[in-house]
Amino acid sequence: MNILLINGPNLNLLGIREKSLYGSTTLESIEKELVKKAISENVSLECFQSNSEGEIIDCIHSSKTKINGILINAGAYTHTSIAIRDALLGVSIPYVELHLSNTSSREPFRQKSFLSDRAIGVVSGFGAYSYYLAMKGLLDYLQRGR
Amino acid sequence: MNILLINGPNLNLLGIREKSLYGSTTLESIEKELVKKAISENVSLECFQSNSEGEIIDCIHSSKTKINGILINAGAYTHTSIAIRDALLGVSIPYVELHLSNTSSREPFRQKSFLSDRAIGVVSGFGAYSYYLAMKGLLDYLQRGR
Amino acid sequence: MNILLINGPNLNLLGIREKSLYGSTTLESIEKELVKKAISENVSLECFQSNSEGEIIDCIHSSKTKINGILINAGAYTHTSIAIRDALLGVSIPYVELHLSNTSSREPFRQKSFLSDRAIGVVSGFGAYSYYLAMKGLLDYLQRGR
Amino acid sequence: MNILLINGPNLNLLGIREKSLYGSTTLESIEKELVKKAISENVSLECFQSNSEGEIIDCIHSSKTKINGILINAGAYTHTSIAIRDALLGVSIPYVELHLSNTSSREPFRQKSFLSDRAIGVVSGFGAYSYYLAMKGLLDYLQRGR
Amino acid sequence: MNILLINGPNLNLLGIREKSLYGSTTLESIEKELVKKAISENVSLECFQSNSEGEIIDCIHSSKTKINGILINAGAYTHTSIAIRDALLGVSIPYVELHLSNTSSREPFRQKSFLSDRAIGVVSGFGAYSYYLAMKGLLDYLQRGR
Amino acid sequence: MNILLINGPNLNLLGIREKSLYGSTTLESIEKELVKKAISENVSLECFQSNSEGEIIDCIHSSKTKINGILINAGAYTHTSIAIRDALLGVSIPYVELHLSNTSSREPFRQKSFLSDRAIGVVSGFGAYSYYLAMKGLLDYLQRGR
Amino acid sequence: MNILLINGPNLNLLGIREKSLYGSTTLESIEKELVKKAISENVSLECFQSNSEGEIIDCIHSSKTKINGILINAGAYTHTSIAIRDALLGVSIPYVELHLSNTSSREPFRQKSFLSDRAIGVVSGFGAYSYYLAMKGLLDYLQRGR
Amino acid sequence: MNILLINGPNLNLLGIREKSLYGSTTLESIEKELVKKAISENVSLECFQSNSEGEIIDCIHSSKTKINGILINAGAYTHTSIAIRDALLGVSIPYVELHLSNTSSREPFRQKSFLSDRAIGVVSGFGAYSYYLAMKGLLDYLQRGR
Amino acid sequence: MNILLINGPNLNLLGIREKSLYGSTTLESIEKELVKKAISENVSLECFQSNSEGEIIDCIHSSKTKINGILINAGAYTHTSIAIRDALLGVSIPYVELHLSNTSSREPFRQKSFLSDRAIGVVSGFGAYSYYLAMKGLLDYLQRGR
Amino acid sequence: MNILLINGPNLNLLGIREKSLYGSTTLESIEKELVKKAISENVSLECFQSNSEGEIIDCIHSSKTKINGILINAGAYTHTSIAIRDALLGVSIPYVELHLSNTSSREPFRQKSFLSDRAIGVVSGFGAYSYYLAMKGLLDYLQRGR
Amino acid sequence: MNILLINGPNLNLLGIREKSLYGSTTLESIEKELVKKAISENVSLECFQSNSEGEIIDCIHSSKTKINGILINAGAYTHTSIAIRDALLGVSIPYVELHLSNTSSREPFRQKSFLSDRAIGVVSGFGAYSYYLAMKGLLDYLQRGR
Amino acid sequence: MNILLINGPNLNLLGIREKSLYGSTTLESIEKELVKKAISENVSLECFQSNSEGEIIDCIHSSKTKINGILINAGAYTHTSIAIRDALLGVSIPYVELHLSNTSSREPFRQKSFLSDRAIGVVSGFGAYSYYLAMKGLLDYLQRGR
Repeated sequence: MNILLINGPNLNLLGIREKSLYGSTTLESIEKELVKKAISENVSLECFQSNSEGEIIDCIHSSKTKINGILINAGAYTHTSIAIRDALLGVSIPYVELHLSNTSSREPFRQKSFLSDRAIGVVSGFGAYSYYLAMKGLLDYLQRGR
Repeated sequence: MNILLINGPNLNLLGIREKSLYGSTTLESIEKELVKKAISENVSLECFQSNSEGEIIDCIHSSKTKINGILINAGAYTHTSIAIRDALLGVSIPYVELHLSNTSSREPFRQKSFLSDRAIGVVSGFGAYSYYLAMKGLLDYLQRGR
Repeated sequence: MNILLINGPNLNLLGIREKSLYGSTTLESIEKELVKKAISENVSLECFQSNSEGEIIDCIHSSKTKINGILINAGAYTHTSIAIRDALLGVSIPYVELHLSNTSSREPFRQKSFLSDRAIGVVSGFGAYSYYLAMKGLLDYLQRGR
Repeated sequence: MNILLINGPNLNLLGIREKSLYGSTTLESIEKELVKKAISENVSLECFQSNSEGEIIDCIHSSKTKINGILINAGAYTHTSIAIRDALLGVSIPYVELHLSNTSSREPFRQKSFLSDRAIGVVSGFGAYSYYLAMKGLLDYLQRGR
Repeated sequence: MNILLINGPNLNLLGIREKSLYGSTTLESIEKELVKKAISENVSLECFQSNSEGEIIDCIHSSKTKINGILINAGAYTHTSIAIRDALLGVSIPYVELHLSNTSSREPFRQKSFLSDRAIGVVSGFGAYSYYLAMKGLLDYLQRGR
Repeated sequence: MNILLINGPNLNLLGIREKSLYGSTTLESIEKELVKKAISENVSLECFQSNSEGEIIDCIHSSKTKINGILINAGAYTHTSIAIRDALLGVSIPYVELHLSNTSSREPFRQKSFLSDRAIGVVSGFGAYSYYLAMKGLLDYLQRGR
Repeated sequence: MNILLINGPNLNLLGIREKSLYGSTTLESIEKELVKKAISENVSLECFQSNSEGEIIDCIHSSKTKINGILINAGAYTHTSIAIRDALLGVSIPYVELHLSNTSSREPFRQKSFLSDRAIGVVSGFGAYSYYLAMKGLLDYLQRGR
Repeated sequence: MNILLINGPNLNLLGIREKSLYGSTTLESIEKELVKKAISENVSLECFQSNSEGEIIDCIHSSKTKINGILINAGAYTHTSIAIRDALLGVSIPYVELHLSNTSSREPFRQKSFLSDRAIGVVSGFGAYSYYLAMKGLLDYLQRGR
Repeated sequence: MNILLINGPNLNLLGIREKSLYGSTTLESIEKELVKKAISENVSLECFQSNSEGEIIDCIHSSKTKINGILINAGAYTHTSIAIRDALLGVSIPYVELHLSNTSSREPFRQKSFLSDRAIGVVSGFGAYSYYLAMKGLLDYLQRGR
Repeated sequence: MNILLINGPNLNLLGIREKSLYGSTTLESIEKELVKKAISENVSLECFQSNSEGEIIDCIHSSKTKINGILINAGAYTHTSIAIRDALLGVSIPYVELHLSNTSSREPFRQKSFLSDRAIGVVSGFGAYSYYLAMKGLLDYLQRGR
Repeated sequence: MNILLINGPNLNLLGIREKSLYGSTTLESIEKELVKKAISENVSLECFQSNSEGEIIDCIHSSKTKINGILINAGAYTHTSIAIRDALLGVSIPYVELHLSNTSSREPFRQKSFLSDRAIGVVSGFGAYSYYLAMKGLLDYLQRGR
Repeated sequence: MNILLINGPNLNLLGIREKSLYGSTTLESIEKELVKKAISENVSLECFQSNSEGEIIDCIHSSKTKINGILINAGAYTHTSIAIRDALLGVSIPYVELHLSNTSSREPFRQKSFLSDRAIGVVSGFGAYSYYLAMKGLLDYLQRGR
């Protein structure tokens, strides 16, 4: 089973920027940790990060044939990108939306997600641990064979 | 460590009503399963369900001194009850909001939650598995000692 | 054939409160009259009134196996209770929504009903006679075997 | 006692168009049936249908002196015609608004009625039977001498 | 100089319907009075009334070559008819919008006019005298040769 | 009979500012002309202009005992001053609202009037001639003794 | 194959009114031209124009059995007539919506179409050429046999 | 003279929860203090608190014959309960709405009150002292015999 | 302790204008009465009224050094004046907002207050007695030394 | 004459993704077919597709000197990109907006286009044939020399 | 070259009120400093401050013949005064709008400016330095002779 | 001191596109001029332009350690990019937002800025001179050491 983790704009700054809001763990260490956990579940996890909406779309397209499920923290593009939504629906791969912070306690423009209504599920607010919960949720979904 | 699980209105119908939407697992079996998982994490889990807003508030109040964290699936009251929000904030116990279905793909009036902006985090859409993910997220939060 | 009539909050005051708006017939006499008419149609009619949202939900749940159709005048809960909506959909029993007064000529917050879009039909504005029309409409629906 | 039944635009297609939504009874047979039922209540029922807003207004005006009550299914004009509302109020004849389908479960633009706030009452969702219920409601109102 | 007076739906009921709101003068007497006043200003006044949106449009079209200015009380069509607006702009004849009652003190749906932003001016609230003021305003405009 | 004409902010610039929009007649000449016309109707007309909301309110208060009707072109205060509305209602003197330009063809924030719903009537768009029409309308109203 | 072209209110003024906006071609010449082009595609084209909403509905109804597809430029009724929408859906004939001008660059009230969401497609902005493009699009749709 | 004091959901936590927001006085001591002050005004004061909407409604109903005025701090139900509003209007007892905190400086969803437009008056923001002011206001009202 | 009472526009008409809405007590007698009550509480009360927004701001500024608390009934400026809000915040003197009538039962444009979210508290609806309650509330606040 | 065809994000998936919505023709075959048709009209057609907003803008800029007209199906960027709008206006090349599906029957967020109000015209809903119609419309426009 | 600097309500409190928000420089010292800088640019600068809307309008009117450009910090009137906007447009003098604080990070009601859309430009957020930048911008504009 | 100037999409067209709106100065000459002025203030200025949202984010990230302040004219991305906002906040570098044209006099969708509420300040409307004013404002801010 192959899983793809997509991180959107500014998530490369994790552990560097705004630590009070996002914690001090870097994206690299989150990815490493998650790959380990994936292996222990017999799952192969690929990681991708980009600040470019177009590159994220390209990445989703290229995953079409080899990926069984997607974990996506689209960052700010969650709230503005219909194109990423279309890419995810276009390749017909089930995905879980996740966020480090609890977006519902932030600015009004972060209350709208173009991804969530077509996601399997959404996990938000647990910091770096959101990634692990989202992966567990995705795997449970895929194993139930829905 | 003591955890309280609160289920709101109509969740006693789980596994009985609208199976295509909510699956065929009963609330009783979800609770049993979760208690077992809690024990394996050395956590004591108490379960409560009510169709009455007032009883849910009473239950939250009575948990004030003995409970370290709350898991709440407030069902329809998620979208209409400021009083339950006030009860949760009044007792100052950290809580996780969870939903069986992905509420963001449902009716517009289910897009508003009076609980989420003050929750640690939110988990929705993973069916009965949402309970397990939410408990994992709550425990991680409590263990980090935030 | 078994029919359940549910009256929501403040309808126990009928014939007592605000007579210019609701008339001087008491709920008791409306219920008695309707039971008689039901018998003449070979239908058994059960009556329930409560000021508590939770008790109305409990009542709907308990009707699950023995009731063929529901008449509901949810009073103010019509406009605020998603939980009663969920209860009605959860038990999958066809229902008719009814009101004594013509709600569309009242306050803006009474223009929204959480029940009507999933009801068989709606009757409002005919005073106590609304109950009779609603029952006739429900019976016609059930007899057509839809 | 003289009652006028007005059917608005496209209702001449009843039983012909969109049968899954409106049933297969023609307007003619509904009218015939209703006239019979009216006679059995010692009431004279006149029937009128037009696709033209102006003709419906003319018809309402001409009923001014001879008609005691109006049953109106204004179809799409329910949602767009202030002029028909003005005509009904201008002749000061009590009226009941009725609909075949449950308009509250249809498109948002059908949620607004220019007629309902000044009607005696509203009946919707019972198919052809809505006509009978509406007539019963109108007669009850007229007989109560309000 | 030729002036056309157009009265829209329900204005034929003037002096008959809702006298407390519109007074007891009939449309016929208003028209007669106005024709007299027009003559005393050396102006020829033609009068037209219809309850049909289409006929009002036809009337405006036919006035294209012979009419110098239009007085229009479009009644309820003021608030719903973009087609009458288009007809008035299509024939490029200056017009004054007028109302018997003060529409700004009435229902919210009467606050919107599709005619007023392209009118020379608007007169409302002076009862039958609004017609005279509107004609005076139109004549002043035409005589100034703008 | 005593009439008061109130002109609000910036109307002292008439004939000087924005001539393409408001024409080249000065406020002084409009007032003079109107006083003459008033005399010919056996009416005494007082004129007042101020750029200050407070002074306009003071003026309205002081007119309480000696004035039979008010003509008011409140300029920009039409759209922002609830206090002037309250002053007009406080002294219970009937008033006519008037505007030089057709406000309905201008900026959205000029579509709202705090004065019009309680005025006898409204005249707008006829340039300086609006003053004359408004006075005629006010006199007709006062003479009808309503 | 039989096609019906419907033109709504004020389109009879084409080539006469507002030439800068709509060009100087008359409706008659557009219809003639289109009939010729239809013949060259082996299609029979019928043309209908009316300023009356009711007549347009009657025309749609009468086309029920003999017409394979409809081209409709409903003019101002595009934005206000739910009844024409219902008529088109009632007869279940596929239709294409078309406009001479680009409605999206015009007044806000022209941004709403009651016809477009159920049309095959929409063509707007190409002047008289819109008719030809719309017919081509309709024929392609019908020939694909969808 | 008999006065009833109703406290809604979570007010039993007063002096315990969120002290920075609501102060450290308990509800019990507020009630005791207020009873004393009532006695010194020759008024009998009854106190009631519940977290249940239904019980509050029941309490209002039961006060129908013996109570002259009601003081109500409905807590969160202020913003969500039309049923409590209906109960208060149903028993026709004058009431004063009060709040400990200044609700207008809190969350947007606390800006809407279903009770205030039909209350005698509203007092908010004075902490425990709000109860005393509200009682004084109610007594003044009752003594003026309005 | 020095208290300033500010009354805004039109309050000088109290007891004169609209008595059914505001009662027949004059502002002068309210002020006299309140000064007496203030003296009995060992407080010095200064009174100010103006119809001018600018003068009210000047008055607030000049109170900066000598006044401990402000009572303000800003009348219509409550709903339109951000400048008075800024003045009150600029001098950092605690203030209580008060109204004679219950503003929440009046026009929609009176539901917005630019003063209330930064006030200590709000009192409305008790007629002239609102002044006394507001002063009591202000004194309690100042004496608690907050 | 040189025409540029721009396809936006996800259109490279055409014929692959969501075939029920977009059909099974690939973008490559659409482009080939259109180039052929262009040649038969003596027009040179260049084709460009990108998932990147920035690249689409770069492409538009580079077409500035050599392109006479643009056909653009901006996909999801239609609804979110003001930058592409600015690019199109910046180079002052006339363009036609086109869509495969009928966007007006899709999600609310697809009802807003940042491109359409400044386009020559819009074609939507005809599947792959939309490209041909749009090109015909563009050529007609360019040939008319407007 | 003559420049006029207008400061609106409460700006006389600068350096005195809310120093954390506005800094500790007084208006007097800002004006002195700016006059010096103006002299060094060979420009004469006049300064005016008032808390009265009417006086600001009077000041703008009186500047009509002698002033080449206006710098205006209208304070709270920026958001509420259409009359000041009209005065500025009435005298046809170019103006720059400026603010000490960054209004876009403040309350929602400060997001609306009635002045900005007709200003040359806007400067906000630079504290006292905003005055200098605004003057530089105005001079550059005037010198470019636009 | 190092300053970074970022120009967003389409600003490379400056002096080429829409000269009536943006003037005829090219971006290159603006940058050159500004670098010169920066040098004369002993400041090093780096310039960057891109049409790609992702590249602008990358650029902001890379400036993290070496840049003291940012000048940003994000063009159309001002109104649509939450990701650029997040990047600016993520690197914690103070920035000034600037615009050539006065955005408040343009389309409604240009009234919303995702950048301004967290900027030091905003400068708009002064053409190429806006760059100089913005740099002066930024330097003043940095030198004050806030």
